[in-house]
Amino acid sequence: MTLRVGVVGGGQLARMMIAPAVELGVEIRVLAEDEGMSAALAATAVGDYRDAETVLAFAREVDVITFDHEHVPQDVLAALVDAGVAVHPGPAPLGVAQDKLVMRARMAELALPQPDWAAVADATHLQAFLDEHGGRAVVKTPRGGYDGKGVRVVTAATEADDWFAALAEDAGGGSLLVEELVDFRRELAQQVARRPSGEVRAYPVVETVQRGGVCAEVIAPGPRAEERVRLVAAEIGVAVAEGLGVTGMLAVELFETSDDRILINELAMRPHNSGHWTQDGAVTSQFEQHLRAVLDLPLGSTDAVAPWAVMINVLGGPATGTLDERFAAAMAAQPAAKIHTYGKAPRPGRKVGHVNVIGDDLDDVVYVARAAASFFD
Amino acid sequence: MTLRVGVVGGGQLARMMIAPAVELGVEIRVLAEDEGMSAALAATAVGDYRDAETVLAFAREVDVITFDHEHVPQDVLAALVDAGVAVHPGPAPLGVAQDKLVMRARMAELALPQPDWAAVADATHLQAFLDEHGGRAVVKTPRGGYDGKGVRVVTAATEADDWFAALAEDAGGGSLLVEELVDFRRELAQQVARRPSGEVRAYPVVETVQRGGVCAEVIAPGPRAEERVRLVAAEIGVAVAEGLGVTGMLAVELFETSDDRILINELAMRPHNSGHWTQDGAVTSQFEQHLRAVLDLPLGSTDAVAPWAVMINVLGGPATGTLDERFAAAMAAQPAAKIHTYGKAPRPGRKVGHVNVIGDDLDDVVYVARAAASFFD
Repeated sequence: MTLRVGVVGGGQLARMMIAPAVELGVEIRVLAEDEGMSAALAATAVGDYRDAETVLAFAREVDVITFDHEHVPQDVLAALVDAGVAVHPGPAPLGVAQDKLVMRARMAELALPQPDWAAVADATHLQAFLDEHGGRAVVKTPRGGYDGKGVRVVTAATEADDWFAALAEDAGGGSLLVEELVDFRRELAQQVARRPSGEVRAYPVVETVQRGGVCAEVIAPGPRAEERVRLVAAEIGVAVAEGLGVTGMLAVELFETSDDRILINELAMRPHNSGHWTQDGAVTSQFEQHLRAVLDLPLGSTDAVAPWAVMINVLGGPATGTLDERFAAAMAAQPAAKIHTYGKAPRPGRKVGHVNVIGDDLDDVVYVARAAASFFD
Repeated sequence: MTLRVGVVGGGQLARMMIAPAVELGVEIRVLAEDEGMSAALAATAVGDYRDAETVLAFAREVDVITFDHEHVPQDVLAALVDAGVAVHPGPAPLGVAQDKLVMRARMAELALPQPDWAAVADATHLQAFLDEHGGRAVVKTPRGGYDGKGVRVVTAATEADDWFAALAEDAGGGSLLVEELVDFRRELAQQVARRPSGEVRAYPVVETVQRGGVCAEVIAPGPRAEERVRLVAAEIGVAVAEGLGVTGMLAVELFETSDDRILINELAMRPHNSGHWTQDGAVTSQFEQHLRAVLDLPLGSTDAVAPWAVMINVLGGPATGTLDERFAAAMAAQPAAKIHTYGKAPRPGRKVGHVNVIGDDLDDVVYVARAAASFFD
């Protein structure tokens, strides 16, 4: 009997599960938000993931429900669990990923390293935090932020007035998250897979380069990461996965501080942009691993297949020519570059694909990846 | 505008084109022989590939037609070409692949190395060939053979009487192919990709191990293949591709004889079992390369990503447990093995999947691949 995985959300993460699903012999079904989304090939249903009836009907045809994103409301998740549906990751860990205040509180309970933080209900509290942290801090909306949205560096409490007002209006009150502005050397990301029966596997820690709040480039493994850094990052990743009971892929975004600490920045409970390199650079891609994990199948090796892998995001920019023409030009110029496309119409700043390159020499690998990606600028 | 490839035939070769098609952003459509075949996920039509109307209707919705097998009749291919459909490989090279007598004659015209051969119309001619070749030879039906079917070693002309009788009845006469029984050290396979505009790329030559006339194991690159062997094999592959005007993937099965010659055994104009290792062992898999080639997109690098790759076919045998249970056990025991499944019901001797393993040490790689495959015996 063929195992069936239902993915809620039809974006590129669902799309990239299709290839390994075919090879694993797993049937993949997608509940897409609209027609013609990234994962259209496997979209067997189109509907609103916020509607419990829609999601329940979709779930009845599969063995396990997983997600392309973390936005499915808790009441819908609860309805699935009540109906006996296997949901991975489950409502409890997803609740942590859905709310950055809850996340900070849980990380504190697990005694994991993170920036100083506080829940601030008004400008007075925010000003107090600023005063204690050199007059600068990062304010975040607890919910709904991604790719740099909902994140703001402030030097005065009044700079978050609009967010406090929005909270009062939308949610009848509540708090913002404020965090110390970490003096970091670079950003790292640690991916971990965990299956319901408990098996856990960590990927090599990677370095991520952000531009404008969006992941631009990933180098795997993180260059010049000492043994200590690799071990601490992996330990943090495993501790989060086990502490929260995450099932499937987990990405922990980390700061490596100027004073050599590793601090937790953000969590994602799904395949993540920082792990796209695994498609061509690891024995088991994060997309295959996610399917194995949510089906409670044995996990695959997380070893790299080459000394270095570099991933560069393709943001649909103002380059001339159609996307197809650009792809052909990039392919012709860089035959060793692996180009992955999301089937999305190009728009400036929109992630429409990525390029992976692997090899023995980091400078060469970076060069080839950037040369291929340059056709899309 | 998304490029669309139509594949005639819904077997595992079509299925394995789905994964790279998704990543390349190519829309793949499949004309399957039946419901529920290997490539069911992309099967947009079910019908008889021998019926020109069926194939023409399918072709109208795609940019190029290619194939999962070489059995589409020449009149159907001609109808496609007449209707202005891009067909890759085209009718002329496919005609060579469809008839082993035509193939031998064309290889002779191209002055490429091959075993002694003859077209024999009756037992008298066959006996004459036997007398000239030490009393032993290989007789082949020119059409319809695969995986060892239609191939017979004979020591007396009467041993082919049934095939001569069948030819007389089915085709109103015709000849069988007879070839010298080559004293070979081992079998090799050379894969080449060629696109309509002429670009050609050769993969590393591999060693293939056959059991019962069926490909059982492939080692890439061919161990102990001297520089001379690698170059000669690649030259032969390129010469066949260019000489016949093959577009897409070409596999040339070769004998390495005991006296150090490289002779052409068989041709296949599609992705081929001897190239399944490329899914995990090469920068560009043969399935991605085939799509790039038939779309006349720039070809990808054919370099290996590791010093060694081993592919072992999984023949659905008499092991206990369901296929899913066997997969799970194999995954648990060998997390570095890449298991590819074809979505076919297991039957003794039927190819239902394969295992790829890559690594630095050939002995280790063979061990892991065989250990994983052993769960399916």
